[in-house]
Amino acid sequence: MIKQLPDLADGQVTVAGWVETIRDQKKVQFVILRDESGSVQLVRPRPEGDDEISSTISELTLGSFVRVSGELKHDERVKLGGIEVKIETFEVVGKALPENPIAEDSSIDKRLDWRFLDLRRPELNLVFRVQTTFEHALRTWWVEHDFVEIHTPKLMASPSESRAELFQVPYFETTAYLAQSPQHFKQMAQASGFGKIFEIGPAFRADPSFTARHATEFTSVDAEISWVDSHEDVMRMHEELLVAGFTAVKEKHGDEIKALFDIDIEVPSTPFPRIPLAEAKQIVADRGYVVPRADDDMDPEGERQISAYVKETYGSDFVFLTDYATSIRPFYHRRHDDDAGLTNSYDLIYNGTEISTGAQREHRVEVLEAQARDKGLDTEELATYLDFFRYGVPSHGGFGMGLGRVLMLMLHLPSIRETTYLFRGPNRLLP
Amino acid sequence: MIKQLPDLADGQVTVAGWVETIRDQKKVQFVILRDESGSVQLVRPRPEGDDEISSTISELTLGSFVRVSGELKHDERVKLGGIEVKIETFEVVGKALPENPIAEDSSIDKRLDWRFLDLRRPELNLVFRVQTTFEHALRTWWVEHDFVEIHTPKLMASPSESRAELFQVPYFETTAYLAQSPQHFKQMAQASGFGKIFEIGPAFRADPSFTARHATEFTSVDAEISWVDSHEDVMRMHEELLVAGFTAVKEKHGDEIKALFDIDIEVPSTPFPRIPLAEAKQIVADRGYVVPRADDDMDPEGERQISAYVKETYGSDFVFLTDYATSIRPFYHRRHDDDAGLTNSYDLIYNGTEISTGAQREHRVEVLEAQARDKGLDTEELATYLDFFRYGVPSHGGFGMGLGRVLMLMLHLPSIRETTYLFRGPNRLLP
Repeated sequence: MIKQLPDLADGQVTVAGWVETIRDQKKVQFVILRDESGSVQLVRPRPEGDDEISSTISELTLGSFVRVSGELKHDERVKLGGIEVKIETFEVVGKALPENPIAEDSSIDKRLDWRFLDLRRPELNLVFRVQTTFEHALRTWWVEHDFVEIHTPKLMASPSESRAELFQVPYFETTAYLAQSPQHFKQMAQASGFGKIFEIGPAFRADPSFTARHATEFTSVDAEISWVDSHEDVMRMHEELLVAGFTAVKEKHGDEIKALFDIDIEVPSTPFPRIPLAEAKQIVADRGYVVPRADDDMDPEGERQISAYVKETYGSDFVFLTDYATSIRPFYHRRHDDDAGLTNSYDLIYNGTEISTGAQREHRVEVLEAQARDKGLDTEELATYLDFFRYGVPSHGGFGMGLGRVLMLMLHLPSIRETTYLFRGPNRLLP
Repeated sequence: MIKQLPDLADGQVTVAGWVETIRDQKKVQFVILRDESGSVQLVRPRPEGDDEISSTISELTLGSFVRVSGELKHDERVKLGGIEVKIETFEVVGKALPENPIAEDSSIDKRLDWRFLDLRRPELNLVFRVQTTFEHALRTWWVEHDFVEIHTPKLMASPSESRAELFQVPYFETTAYLAQSPQHFKQMAQASGFGKIFEIGPAFRADPSFTARHATEFTSVDAEISWVDSHEDVMRMHEELLVAGFTAVKEKHGDEIKALFDIDIEVPSTPFPRIPLAEAKQIVADRGYVVPRADDDMDPEGERQISAYVKETYGSDFVFLTDYATSIRPFYHRRHDDDAGLTNSYDLIYNGTEISTGAQREHRVEVLEAQARDKGLDTEELATYLDFFRYGVPSHGGFGMGLGRVLMLMLHLPSIRETTYLFRGPNRLLP
């Protein structure tokens, strides 16, 4: 890989990548070659009357993939890393069409049309290397803490969350639904005695909205643990996990993130501030913003406001908003023992945007059934789910977190369209 | 966790899990409690005239989840690990219905109906802890070798493999398809200059068959690497990866697998034997089995036969069958330079069953288009995919491997129904 070249002694090397720049001069030809790790200058004195290699370079198109062998030379005068490779063999492996359909200033929609070319940009390549490191740190933390990895099915016989925003799939003689979350099956693992489980996988929402935070398919980071006393146990796991993720990203990519995004990755301190939602709304109101909602929920501007307050007051990029009203939470959230109007739940806000919802679950089946009826749900349709609770189940809780949102907020990008490998929205199924 | 108890000194402990056995005797009550890590005996002398705890234990149902505190005592006379816990407090957290709907000898279909109870069996719990360790070892190997993790979309505008066995999803004003594999998007990463990528995620096949090896949704283990010279480079990566996976499983679970499955996990030696398919068919024929197929492919019995031959001859549980005929491979497999009738491809056979298909891909777009037409495919429908190759792409190759199959064969289980968290088949969408 190109990033390893500066550490090699002068001598014979082979490099491979795509052509980023060509300077085809009379006396000398230069090619800047890039791979996933960096870029390097290739050079060749032009022979009188040209030869095969010099003609190949003259006819080269930007973006073509080439494999080159030659002599590595350290030379302080070369701006690009103080090295260059003197071309000896030059093979065009994959020739590019001459015209790049996107430019630096193309719209996000145009860039998404040509996502495979857009992803060649070093910043976007870095996004996915950061994703790799972040996820691996999360999984390593889970594995070290005896969690079991599960792969829940995405094809279900009944909706996992609600009848809204649901994709239906004709399935042999019947109809299946695409999982909106792994909720049911994460909880099933608790009844199965798995103890602590995690999953990183796709979730699907037939969501017709076009915001920077929503997609019809997204990567959901999920965990669920047995024997919680309240949502506090879930939040503690959640924040420790994020510390592990941010520590790994800072260590492995901190310098590069600084260079390409001008961002200093900070490992968050724990415990993250915890603020009951009602109190958060009061704080926001005291700052002069009244959340314009009829229900008890926050809105995106309210989340930005409370985030700003927490940053100013506690220096934290993260805040848990806790104890959401029963009216705005799903039936399976456990309610306060002393106030049925509040739930043992939280949202995690990061840099002004919600990235996660967590809760203690209601595991007492008769209470769970009553709460489902209370929300107007059809308990017949929930029969399989409710069965999970009839044969013994421990108290438990967990969270789901949007991976694309975490990356978007970590790298100060404007939309999850930038941090999703291939974005899916109401009018986007391509490429 | 219960597995940690033997290492603790005598004294106060709290344990939690589900009730596996109750011996409700006149003078003393015993409960065997199990969690995901093991089981332990709880004991309590029965007071004259009973009290709250003794009554609770008398009324206890098997499978109920309880939390118990008491005094840990090491006592060599106790068969179960040489320890017991003398009950002081006893809390029923999740009470089970008294009748377990499945028994040890229930049919697989009945057990799948009650999968969440079936998964409490220690062998099945172990399957998923082995899965966790195996996957984590694979990902760690990839991360250490600079692979990037991607999450490809499962909703696609056109089929990824073929028009057969395809789930269709009504998608706003249009129709989407569920990805049969991440093939297109793994290859897109090569054009994007990602170099080396991996993904473990769901794949969907509307496959109406009912074999032990097929499902409509399965977990696919995928990798793709740039700059391969042939499928040999892919096979080398593949076998190193499996060595990493098996090494980790043997280290972490070897003893338990021996105890519960009576299997000695063996870390395979590399290189795995490689046998061109035509040669393999001759070997099988020489053993007296003529593959009853009109085309050039192997059949399951042929795979068992060649596997037996390789085990006898080389002592290997794994064999790469290579150079499949063009007629039985997808259009995107690269063909031999000197024989267009053969491809740079392989299947990996493990203990008699195919677990994976790999290949070098055809990256020369004009050849790729010709091969698609040659297979009778509609190049219009492939337009987006073919575009990936028009703007420069390196040579590349990769594989897809069924996670459920690997676990099934590793643990000598009869079906992927046992090794899939929640199996999906033509007539199974529940639980």
